[in-house]
Amino acid sequence: MATHRPVSCGLDFCAAPNLNNCLHQATTNKFDFVCVPLVHPNFKREFFSGNAKERPGPFTRSDMLLCSSDWNNLVIGKLSPYFNPDSKIPMLMKNSETALNQELSLAAHLGVPAITFKLKGNIQKHMNLARIIYDKIMTTCIFQVWVQVPMENPAKQAYTYRDDEEHSLESPWEWWNSFRTVCDFERKIGVALIVSHDLPESEEIDRWLGEPVKCLIFPTTLFISNKRGYPVLSRAHQTLIKKFCSHDIQFILTGANRHQNISNYHSYLDYLWKSCQINGPVEKFARGYEDYLQCPLQPLMDNLESQTYEIFEKDPVKYTEYQRAIHMAIVDKSKKLRKTEPMLVTEIRAIKILSKPLIKFIVSYSVIMLVGAGRGPLVRASLNAADHAHKNVKVYAVEKNPNAVITLQALVKEMWSNRVTVVSCDMRNWEAPEKADILVSELLGSFGDNELSPECLDGVQKFLKDDGVSIPSSYTSYISPVQSSKLYNEVKQCKEKDKHAIAHFETPYVVHLQNKYDIAAPQSLFSFHHPNKDIVIDNTRYAVKKFTVRQNSVLHGFSGYFDAVLYDTVKLSIEPNSHSTGMFSWFPIFFPIKEPVQLKTGDEIEIHFWRRCSTKNVWYEWCLSKPICGSVHNPNGRSSTIGL
Amino acid sequence: MATHRPVSCGLDFCAAPNLNNCLHQATTNKFDFVCVPLVHPNFKREFFSGNAKERPGPFTRSDMLLCSSDWNNLVIGKLSPYFNPDSKIPMLMKNSETALNQELSLAAHLGVPAITFKLKGNIQKHMNLARIIYDKIMTTCIFQVWVQVPMENPAKQAYTYRDDEEHSLESPWEWWNSFRTVCDFERKIGVALIVSHDLPESEEIDRWLGEPVKCLIFPTTLFISNKRGYPVLSRAHQTLIKKFCSHDIQFILTGANRHQNISNYHSYLDYLWKSCQINGPVEKFARGYEDYLQCPLQPLMDNLESQTYEIFEKDPVKYTEYQRAIHMAIVDKSKKLRKTEPMLVTEIRAIKILSKPLIKFIVSYSVIMLVGAGRGPLVRASLNAADHAHKNVKVYAVEKNPNAVITLQALVKEMWSNRVTVVSCDMRNWEAPEKADILVSELLGSFGDNELSPECLDGVQKFLKDDGVSIPSSYTSYISPVQSSKLYNEVKQCKEKDKHAIAHFETPYVVHLQNKYDIAAPQSLFSFHHPNKDIVIDNTRYAVKKFTVRQNSVLHGFSGYFDAVLYDTVKLSIEPNSHSTGMFSWFPIFFPIKEPVQLKTGDEIEIHFWRRCSTKNVWYEWCLSKPICGSVHNPNGRSSTIGL
Repeated sequence: MATHRPVSCGLDFCAAPNLNNCLHQATTNKFDFVCVPLVHPNFKREFFSGNAKERPGPFTRSDMLLCSSDWNNLVIGKLSPYFNPDSKIPMLMKNSETALNQELSLAAHLGVPAITFKLKGNIQKHMNLARIIYDKIMTTCIFQVWVQVPMENPAKQAYTYRDDEEHSLESPWEWWNSFRTVCDFERKIGVALIVSHDLPESEEIDRWLGEPVKCLIFPTTLFISNKRGYPVLSRAHQTLIKKFCSHDIQFILTGANRHQNISNYHSYLDYLWKSCQINGPVEKFARGYEDYLQCPLQPLMDNLESQTYEIFEKDPVKYTEYQRAIHMAIVDKSKKLRKTEPMLVTEIRAIKILSKPLIKFIVSYSVIMLVGAGRGPLVRASLNAADHAHKNVKVYAVEKNPNAVITLQALVKEMWSNRVTVVSCDMRNWEAPEKADILVSELLGSFGDNELSPECLDGVQKFLKDDGVSIPSSYTSYISPVQSSKLYNEVKQCKEKDKHAIAHFETPYVVHLQNKYDIAAPQSLFSFHHPNKDIVIDNTRYAVKKFTVRQNSVLHGFSGYFDAVLYDTVKLSIEPNSHSTGMFSWFPIFFPIKEPVQLKTGDEIEIHFWRRCSTKNVWYEWCLSKPICGSVHNPNGRSSTIGL
Repeated sequence: MATHRPVSCGLDFCAAPNLNNCLHQATTNKFDFVCVPLVHPNFKREFFSGNAKERPGPFTRSDMLLCSSDWNNLVIGKLSPYFNPDSKIPMLMKNSETALNQELSLAAHLGVPAITFKLKGNIQKHMNLARIIYDKIMTTCIFQVWVQVPMENPAKQAYTYRDDEEHSLESPWEWWNSFRTVCDFERKIGVALIVSHDLPESEEIDRWLGEPVKCLIFPTTLFISNKRGYPVLSRAHQTLIKKFCSHDIQFILTGANRHQNISNYHSYLDYLWKSCQINGPVEKFARGYEDYLQCPLQPLMDNLESQTYEIFEKDPVKYTEYQRAIHMAIVDKSKKLRKTEPMLVTEIRAIKILSKPLIKFIVSYSVIMLVGAGRGPLVRASLNAADHAHKNVKVYAVEKNPNAVITLQALVKEMWSNRVTVVSCDMRNWEAPEKADILVSELLGSFGDNELSPECLDGVQKFLKDDGVSIPSSYTSYISPVQSSKLYNEVKQCKEKDKHAIAHFETPYVVHLQNKYDIAAPQSLFSFHHPNKDIVIDNTRYAVKKFTVRQNSVLHGFSGYFDAVLYDTVKLSIEPNSHSTGMFSWFPIFFPIKEPVQLKTGDEIEIHFWRRCSTKNVWYEWCLSKPICGSVHNPNGRSSTIGL
């Protein structure tokens, strides 16, 4: 099923006197759509001054040329390039505005999927344009807007010849950033990135990964010829395409054909695109979930469904690691026992009732308690671990979900009869008949403690022997600042009528982060250790983290991860720098902030995070204090809590 | 009815071992309430470490000491000053947090109207405190929080002795600003301003006028003795009090009594407070409307009520100025006429039918059209003006509100029989029987054109003679950037369920601005001239205005004003620098912005304003582009329009 997505590539025309010819040329050369001016450059219009205003006849081609479905699927409309609704000359400004509105209405009438135009500077040059586009998009328009932005400031070329002076040129990303900010991050407005010959620094390219890039525009001049005369891209440009491989983007080819057959460009781009698609277990598992917001599971309050168990049991890494950890714990225990065993055996033998082998068994077997056993994957791991260690174990499988208990009981009947005791009970209410050597649980969420592992384990640790161990023995959450226009918009869509107006911005989401830029590397936040031997156990936390901003960017929230020490050197991690390869059980978590914050190179981000607890709930609060002061998110858990 | 509000002044106690004694002492000395610690300083509590945690007995006095209504009205509770929930020592932090929550719960239990505590630095020192307070306020608490802030940084005193070095000390306003930002401008949180001996610069004091200052705290050490030994304040401190005279604030006296009888302080403050209350016509008219948001009138779509007419007809300035303007216009017209009259008379006489006096009348009388005549105040002004000029006039009183027409018709019957023709008709549909010399209207709103005067007058100007005049002949709107915590909160409260989530932040409001700080002086925005002789009349507008920020502050929106030239030198204005004295017909308008913007000294504010028109509506859009880029407010009039 490892299908590689084919490329979707359009062909750009600077003028299209005969639209059907253009379409024919494009499709016969395998291109998927065309990019043509909505109005021929000859048809400039005048609305305010006397005579020209009265010019008779249509101002562009008829909609009858194509059938609706062709307009809807095959044509991207280009706005006339000479508009300047930001002109300082009032008549020019008004005329541009009217003509622009005319073309936007036409585009809506035709039903083209998108219109496109080029940015030439920052918002000081484009405020009225931005306002007009945004106004139009707000109302009836169904088309997308692809804002063309060059990857490098065109002025840079001019300066390379006179490098005696220091020129800090504005990155065109700033143009886009101010434009879309004015348009309130409207989701219908995306970027068409014009790929430049000289590419900017890697970090600057990465910043585009957090933007809604709809397409990459490739001028034919970027292509070089390979030995056989076919058009290919430089290694740098190939790397660029690879960076976007997990994004949902299209290509546009623009400029004169410089290589025999123009279909060769398409073939090459298609080849490149397919070859950079990754199809590992994580990718397969996560397909379709890219940047899709999910509410974190609340396994304490809700019972998981069969399907959910099935998915997570398939993780190729998690249970192997658990088994390794349990194995090590059993082995270590028996090492310790070897020192004390003779003494114990002597003591018990003094009672003079039990046979020698039975005594041997009693003193050397390990009690393993699995709290939250689900459908039994950890039972299996425990028994396997014991078998590999050639040790005896007694397993208690505690599970509160009565439906999962059925599975466990069936498995006991089938194959685990003597070794496993199923307990149908919430671990927090269970009265264990004996104390455990090893307490095994898998209660971790994407943010470590966010499925209330600390609270659960605090409750059951009274049944752990004084020298008993908990697997996991500790876990730590991580956060890092993130730019993602996409996620910001997704969160904005989550508004619910009956909730607090900004509840959706005060809720963490589990999400397979793709369309994002990491503003800084993750840092550890909260840690928990088990068993917890504090006099007064307090699972509230408060921490402040500081991050340095590497380049101008926009803060939309914080991504969250965790790592856990299962036992000794056996670890699980979804923290990007140490992610357990192939493990897919956890997507990251995302904590949004109410309003995007504009960041400057060198700014310090300071974020405060609280973990708070009541008798019924646990929740997080967070608040930015630098570079600007924000307000407390989720005060008192008003918008999101995790139920005990 | 010019009652001067008495002062409300409380007495502060640093400790209150016997609460009833304190209350007795305060009330017998005319004080209105007391300010006492919620818990005696001796009762420090310990929650985490072993023994102290178990200390028996109550931690403060019983609630039975006072009846509920006394707790509710007479006692402000002070939090223990030694709390430090921001301590870097975890146990100290947690203990402070628990003790603080205990006192906050106690305050809620007692039902005190407010609790108070002192800020000692910016949010880096107080983040956890702010979060705890905000969390508490969010839930059950009904009390207000009075955050004590010194007017001057206490460190300043220390530096005055070593003025060789440049010390730019943070203003305590910054402490407050960051604190309340973290608390999301929560309306229950206000300022208790501790008045300092040396007052800061006037501009810095003015900034507090935009803050929710609930009370001024006066240490007794600020008072000096007058000749008769009574406590009085310096002129500078008197000026300070005057600045707050239109605000709803209370006083607190703190410190040892240094002047025989402590009631003398109260008497003096009461005297001062009463003497600085202003009771002009505007103040009387506006009482009770301070900072109260009203939706602008839509007289085109709705008919005004009798009461509304009555209120506005009472304006002592507006109609006098209109009368002056009409008078000047009539006089000017007859001057012009005197040149052409003999010629005209000769011409008409040639027709040989009319008598000489009749001819004289025909050529010298003026036609005045009153469009939107209401209940007739402008008819009265026109007739008076003509009488004073000893000229004949024929008045058409056009009014669309059938209820007001009844009044007009009655007046015609009673006293205006020959001179006034009442036309019951929307001026935009009226077909006038003759052309006018003078077109008089009062269609102006707080923002000049915002009640669609331009659209209305464009419609009727076809009935104006070529050399006819319009009164008003032009008008201009003004905007200026404003800081006002109060207004921001008022707008926040205007959220309506069925509207767009931020519709209330995209709506202009008419409001008697009081609790505000003007960040910069107003600048003119849009102008309209009548009659409008453009070939294509276009009442859309687009303008960009720049303001320089004088000191760190917070932008909450823009106040709007207008001025109008009625005729020649006769003007009406509500623009603060040229406000027509005593005129109360218009309060300013306020355009909010979605999110408060933190400003720094020297920042440039750049705001874009559009006036937009469709066939059905007119509306404004606005967008900030500096110091940070905002998004377009009210795109396409989605949240607020004015109906044609």
